[in-house]
Amino acid sequence: MTPEEFRRYGHEVVDWIADYSERIREYPVLSRNKPGDLTRALPGSAPETGEPMDAILNDFRNLIVPAITHWNHPAFLGYFATSGSEPGVLGEMLTAGLNVNGMLWKSSPAVTELEQVTLSWLRQWLGLPDTFFGLIYDTASTSTLHAVVAARQMADPADIANLVLYCSEQAHSSVEKAAVTAGICRSNVRKIGVDEAFRLRPLLLSNAIEQDRAAGRQPFCIVATVGTTAMASTDPVEQIADIAALHNIWLHVDAAYGGSAAILPEMAHVMNGCGRAHSLVVNPHKWLLTPVDLSVFYTSRPDILRRAFSLVPEYLRTEDNPEAVNLMDYGFQLGRRFRALKLWFVMRSYGRAGLAEIIRGHLELAQEFAGWVRGDIRFELCAPVDFSLVCFRYCGSDADNQKLLDAINQSGTALLSPAVFGGRMLLRLAIGNYRTTRNDLRRVWDCLGLLADQLVLSGGTLDSRR
Amino acid sequence: MTPEEFRRYGHEVVDWIADYSERIREYPVLSRNKPGDLTRALPGSAPETGEPMDAILNDFRNLIVPAITHWNHPAFLGYFATSGSEPGVLGEMLTAGLNVNGMLWKSSPAVTELEQVTLSWLRQWLGLPDTFFGLIYDTASTSTLHAVVAARQMADPADIANLVLYCSEQAHSSVEKAAVTAGICRSNVRKIGVDEAFRLRPLLLSNAIEQDRAAGRQPFCIVATVGTTAMASTDPVEQIADIAALHNIWLHVDAAYGGSAAILPEMAHVMNGCGRAHSLVVNPHKWLLTPVDLSVFYTSRPDILRRAFSLVPEYLRTEDNPEAVNLMDYGFQLGRRFRALKLWFVMRSYGRAGLAEIIRGHLELAQEFAGWVRGDIRFELCAPVDFSLVCFRYCGSDADNQKLLDAINQSGTALLSPAVFGGRMLLRLAIGNYRTTRNDLRRVWDCLGLLADQLVLSGGTLDSRR
Repeated sequence: MTPEEFRRYGHEVVDWIADYSERIREYPVLSRNKPGDLTRALPGSAPETGEPMDAILNDFRNLIVPAITHWNHPAFLGYFATSGSEPGVLGEMLTAGLNVNGMLWKSSPAVTELEQVTLSWLRQWLGLPDTFFGLIYDTASTSTLHAVVAARQMADPADIANLVLYCSEQAHSSVEKAAVTAGICRSNVRKIGVDEAFRLRPLLLSNAIEQDRAAGRQPFCIVATVGTTAMASTDPVEQIADIAALHNIWLHVDAAYGGSAAILPEMAHVMNGCGRAHSLVVNPHKWLLTPVDLSVFYTSRPDILRRAFSLVPEYLRTEDNPEAVNLMDYGFQLGRRFRALKLWFVMRSYGRAGLAEIIRGHLELAQEFAGWVRGDIRFELCAPVDFSLVCFRYCGSDADNQKLLDAINQSGTALLSPAVFGGRMLLRLAIGNYRTTRNDLRRVWDCLGLLADQLVLSGGTLDSRR
Repeated sequence: MTPEEFRRYGHEVVDWIADYSERIREYPVLSRNKPGDLTRALPGSAPETGEPMDAILNDFRNLIVPAITHWNHPAFLGYFATSGSEPGVLGEMLTAGLNVNGMLWKSSPAVTELEQVTLSWLRQWLGLPDTFFGLIYDTASTSTLHAVVAARQMADPADIANLVLYCSEQAHSSVEKAAVTAGICRSNVRKIGVDEAFRLRPLLLSNAIEQDRAAGRQPFCIVATVGTTAMASTDPVEQIADIAALHNIWLHVDAAYGGSAAILPEMAHVMNGCGRAHSLVVNPHKWLLTPVDLSVFYTSRPDILRRAFSLVPEYLRTEDNPEAVNLMDYGFQLGRRFRALKLWFVMRSYGRAGLAEIIRGHLELAQEFAGWVRGDIRFELCAPVDFSLVCFRYCGSDADNQKLLDAINQSGTALLSPAVFGGRMLLRLAIGNYRTTRNDLRRVWDCLGLLADQLVLSGGTLDSRR
């Protein structure tokens, strides 16, 4: 493809993205495809000779787009809703155009330095200590895996089978996966009970650690969460940090979702105690308008992280210019995409105040939606609304709630996701897209009410449309 | 940013990328920045309120670009040179525009299905068995980590401290890092000696395994390499597969660089024996014109991979529709960027023949460059040229070679990288950019000759310009 052709098709692609953004409400949120539809529409083998770009872009529009569940849709309210903002997309385009790999400082100084600069900026916004060293990884799962390996390094166990990790029963599955990946026995992942607001109970944590110590096991890592996935609860990090300090255990904070809210002065408290953590993850690709993937990992102990991952013994290190750090020495991945560029575009284009205004809007919308739930006898609120997630349920059976969820998701009107707590099924409505307005939510709420009435009238045959 | 503004700035960014591509030879390959230059040019804190996109793009051009080492430059010949082709960039743009996360089939069917379709296409090109199940990860390091964890799962050790992993002393550092991450003792990574062509010696491997068994240790993983990083040597995979089968040990093949060559009929032999591996990694972001990051992981034992990483016990699995596989169950990462799209754009836009022609060109250029080295009394060739990597050295001291390397890299004319074998320093020239022509290489070779003469004349003060 010549530069001229790239120019032409590049403009076409930009225009498609702009049109897509303008017409995003016309798409069903959840893809209407059935399993295998796309696979069957595509050839079983790749072409032997090249095809024209017009044909590829046609197939993109006609085959790929219908197989997309639209995370950009303002009524995408499942999992944690996200926004890939336009400035972030521009940053991604330039990252692709430059196509550099920042494994070493010199292999592209901009990758290493812009990563350090933007993460210093973000650290200030989040009110974290300036001793925190930051790195960008792909996902929170990878960030948490690095935390667990660093914790293992700090513990320096005689027997890895003795190591025990602690988190609440509401912690994300990536914590257990990180432990398993790092060679920790699944039976040595302790899921500590939570209080009525779904927060880890420090006394239970303390007792579990004492018991494990008494049994000759070695507690090595505690993971606290700021904004859990299921209920957006926040563990009492300050008290947990006391326990971690008392026992000299690595404390990792999973603030992948909730951490971003701390850029609002009135939400800064969600980071209480987090400055005492050994590591913390926050995901700008969730709530800071940055396209996936971009997860930020901070640690107060980069020395331990480097000891875990650098293959060069410390006494042989020569290039210790603190301004020319080689980020490959701080993790298991050699390759490093220029992810900081899109974060830089987003932080500058919106500014702190601009991003704070959007997050504040989400918090207010969540409160308003929660008010609608509280005011409707057919539904009940299931968790405090501390962030932009509303957990609620239809006052009926789990099967009723499943039918309601399936019906609204299959309708294409909105996407919600399920959660289970105390054996009961809940509905999660997560607000995190900058396009989402009060009207969008009102439409979803009206639709839920309508479907709930149908559920009563039909005696539970709401799933007829499946 | 309104869709109209995005359209305007998007076109501007596309035009910048096209201009950049047309003028790529005007840039110095290695950034001339000194450590900290970019950091000092940027504010210490993020802006409180948003800034205009014009200002951001200006800073991109004036501050970021000079801090870039240009992997797109045809004389970027260090590490493994790569190409982020224009069709791949278009795919990346759409991935950013859609901003979906394919953790589950339904969270965007296109991510899961296009990943499976493109990896099936690629599997056919590489001549791998159709029983191989493919997944896309970010980097080969992550792919290899998944291999090591799956190998550990298959071994099901009574004591993880007993597990031993084997690779050649030429294997990539990511193998040792993967082992360390997975909780394997660094002292249990056996680096097996190589023959005169830098290939793992099967007899030494066999002996090492026997010795470890006799000592009560548990061999669990062998990593063979097709195209090592330092010398592009290829281990005898067929013989290694025999040893792996005999001892029931997981065999992983690191074909991150070399594997792509197998799309040429005349190079298909590099994959000999690889169909017997339990897993294999190949990186389209290296030699298949795909922008970073995109690493492909194949395994003949997806059942073991899933057993290692799925937190849902097998007997509780309900959604076993083979057409609606949830890829999150096959690795530690939950998030999954829509990486397959750019691979699909590249495979269709070039076709197999188009990509093969480019790789064939690189192989021929490498042979030609090797011929120049052989024909010049000042230089010597240090390894067979089986792929597109030429390892050579100036017939002088290591210090001379270091000076030569520094001089050509600092000049901005080209970027080469160093390697060390048998205590001697070598220069690596890796061809992998689709823009690289015979003329580009001739210029590099002439420059090397000139610098070598200066080295003699100056009595070794070539580094004066540093």
